[in-house]
Amino acid sequence: MKRTKRETTAARKLRDLRAALAADVPGRLDKLRDELDARRLDAMLVTSAPNVHYLSGFTGDESALLVGTRAGTRGRTGGVLVTDARFEEEAAPSAPNAKVVIRKGPLIKECVKQARKRGWRRLGFELTGLLAVDRDDLAREARAVRAKRVRLKGIRGLVEALRQLKSAAEVGAIRRAVRLAEAAGRTARGYFRAGRSELDVARRVARRMEDLGAAGSSFPTIAAFDARSSLPHAKPTDAVARAKSFLLLDWGARADFYCSDLTRVFAQNSIPAWLRRAHSVVHEAARAALERAGPGVRARDVDGAAREVIRKAGWGKEFRHGLGHGLGLEVHEAPRLGPGSPDVLWPGMVVTIEPGVYFPGRGGVRIEDDVLVTDDGAERLSGLPRCLR
Amino acid sequence: MKRTKRETTAARKLRDLRAALAADVPGRLDKLRDELDARRLDAMLVTSAPNVHYLSGFTGDESALLVGTRAGTRGRTGGVLVTDARFEEEAAPSAPNAKVVIRKGPLIKECVKQARKRGWRRLGFELTGLLAVDRDDLAREARAVRAKRVRLKGIRGLVEALRQLKSAAEVGAIRRAVRLAEAAGRTARGYFRAGRSELDVARRVARRMEDLGAAGSSFPTIAAFDARSSLPHAKPTDAVARAKSFLLLDWGARADFYCSDLTRVFAQNSIPAWLRRAHSVVHEAARAALERAGPGVRARDVDGAAREVIRKAGWGKEFRHGLGHGLGLEVHEAPRLGPGSPDVLWPGMVVTIEPGVYFPGRGGVRIEDDVLVTDDGAERLSGLPRCLR
Repeated sequence: MKRTKRETTAARKLRDLRAALAADVPGRLDKLRDELDARRLDAMLVTSAPNVHYLSGFTGDESALLVGTRAGTRGRTGGVLVTDARFEEEAAPSAPNAKVVIRKGPLIKECVKQARKRGWRRLGFELTGLLAVDRDDLAREARAVRAKRVRLKGIRGLVEALRQLKSAAEVGAIRRAVRLAEAAGRTARGYFRAGRSELDVARRVARRMEDLGAAGSSFPTIAAFDARSSLPHAKPTDAVARAKSFLLLDWGARADFYCSDLTRVFAQNSIPAWLRRAHSVVHEAARAALERAGPGVRARDVDGAAREVIRKAGWGKEFRHGLGHGLGLEVHEAPRLGPGSPDVLWPGMVVTIEPGVYFPGRGGVRIEDDVLVTDDGAERLSGLPRCLR
Repeated sequence: MKRTKRETTAARKLRDLRAALAADVPGRLDKLRDELDARRLDAMLVTSAPNVHYLSGFTGDESALLVGTRAGTRGRTGGVLVTDARFEEEAAPSAPNAKVVIRKGPLIKECVKQARKRGWRRLGFELTGLLAVDRDDLAREARAVRAKRVRLKGIRGLVEALRQLKSAAEVGAIRRAVRLAEAAGRTARGYFRAGRSELDVARRVARRMEDLGAAGSSFPTIAAFDARSSLPHAKPTDAVARAKSFLLLDWGARADFYCSDLTRVFAQNSIPAWLRRAHSVVHEAARAALERAGPGVRARDVDGAAREVIRKAGWGKEFRHGLGHGLGLEVHEAPRLGPGSPDVLWPGMVVTIEPGVYFPGRGGVRIEDDVLVTDDGAERLSGLPRCLR
């Protein structure tokens, strides 16, 4: 009885979360339209799949969204979603505000036709959401009707910039993805012992997240024993843990299209001294970065806070990558936390903080948490213990 | 005892298969170099990840391979693999013939620098393997040193064209991927009954393939009950099968980086008359296409053979997609089997044959097999029974 009631509450919360995510869409379009006005564009052609999802709710692929300015949009406020017959049935329910166009011919050709039909002659397009070959097609189609020539303007990272600042609903979705990953991480911790293979552990984690309600992993799980943990992108193998092996696990869940991304190092009973020291230094670096993070702080300075701790320990060169990255509909998105990053943190950004040191032939240590920038600092969304045991 | 021996044989066969795949790489580079000579290029910049893998063996991402002509390649015959520190340890073992360059700066910049250093001034690049923004960077870098200007030539689908013709080792890898998918399909057939959800079935299939030795699914499994089967790209839901439900399952395995892709419709005891008839027509269409397929046959004519059967049954409009696609390192690759396809079939091509009819509100039927074009016809690689029961 009690169980049923709890499940009902969870189900209701999930329904509310999904409704709140859907309710975000009009506000996102408003912000994009402000940018179109500022750039004196009539419309923008959005072709990156996560951006189309963000601005419409549609979850298929090989589709595009045309977003006109307020002035240029007669009645329809959700943009024009150009897709194909495979997505015909699901397009309208998933993108209720958009006008759905089912194309017969090529995607780019249909998009230019739709823009021209609406008198949209100054058209922005996504430089990072279009293949070179598609841009060539776009340029050709834009010139095709001489009297109604469409002028193109390549735009870099505009929707990605909007996506950096998460709404309360989005933070809620990421919190859920973090919770699912953490529960699976606890399972992995219990499952990891001598005799298990990297693949066994990686699959156990992925399946546990699914069984708990995740859509799946947000990226292929990294499970690396001992020396293999020095490969920052190790793919799990049949290698089997020995009695003194340790495990580096980098995993994340996807829930309601939002991602989590965590890393922990798990040891068994015996912990070599170098590992204990490396773990302690990396832990301290993560702590320093979290303390530095906050609104108005340069991303490079947060990276610097962690890097300074590791450099002082004598391992500056062993910290071979940037400190972290934004997290949302994609597992790697803006902003970027690294030495040369031009980005600045603002409230609502969700980023990873993941310092690490790597010793080829011996192993690597990385600790990764997901962090929300708040009005007065930063909140760690992931609470899974960071100790080795 | 017997079991151990069989396992040893399987392990040896797998090792031989992998060695044969690796041994294919130099021949692939030779073919590409013939094309470079024919186009009077000094080198080609390969940026599409499956193409980089095909031509080097490297399996990381965000990397590129520069392939010079025979004349322009001094000593090194495997090309120049430009990657970053994350892949430093694995690059050389996975791409033993390539010269590995670990970049510090941006990928495109380093690639142009390497080309310039080798005197490669006429450089081909992949129009379908580069984002618009990267092509802009490439153009800028190519102009950056005026005295050593690099001339660029956009190339469309060259490596993809080479990849269409599979070697014996590649066909062996695809056969293995088909076998793994078929074994999981049998499991799903037994697992599907009233009370199971689409997600349950989809996950059972994916896990079974992994447990049998697949690297994973070659694409997200489609498991759709009843009316939902009319969505050609249905995502599995919590919907639960009833006593009279039927299941459309579209799934595939990835093994040694090669893909399989199958579809079957499974019914329980009671089969509605419309489903029985639709299945029989689609089955006949698949048979007609397989019979038509062979060396020198136009892909559109193979599509036409299936389409004619379905058209005669009165469902021309309900066959809403092309007949099939090539299969290899990607689950969708060249050639394309559809009404307007310019492609011609040749021995060594592996394609799907997957006619289907879809009735919104009622359901859909699709039967998909993987087929090898041979010297005198076509061989069905998948032998899983196609009956509804």
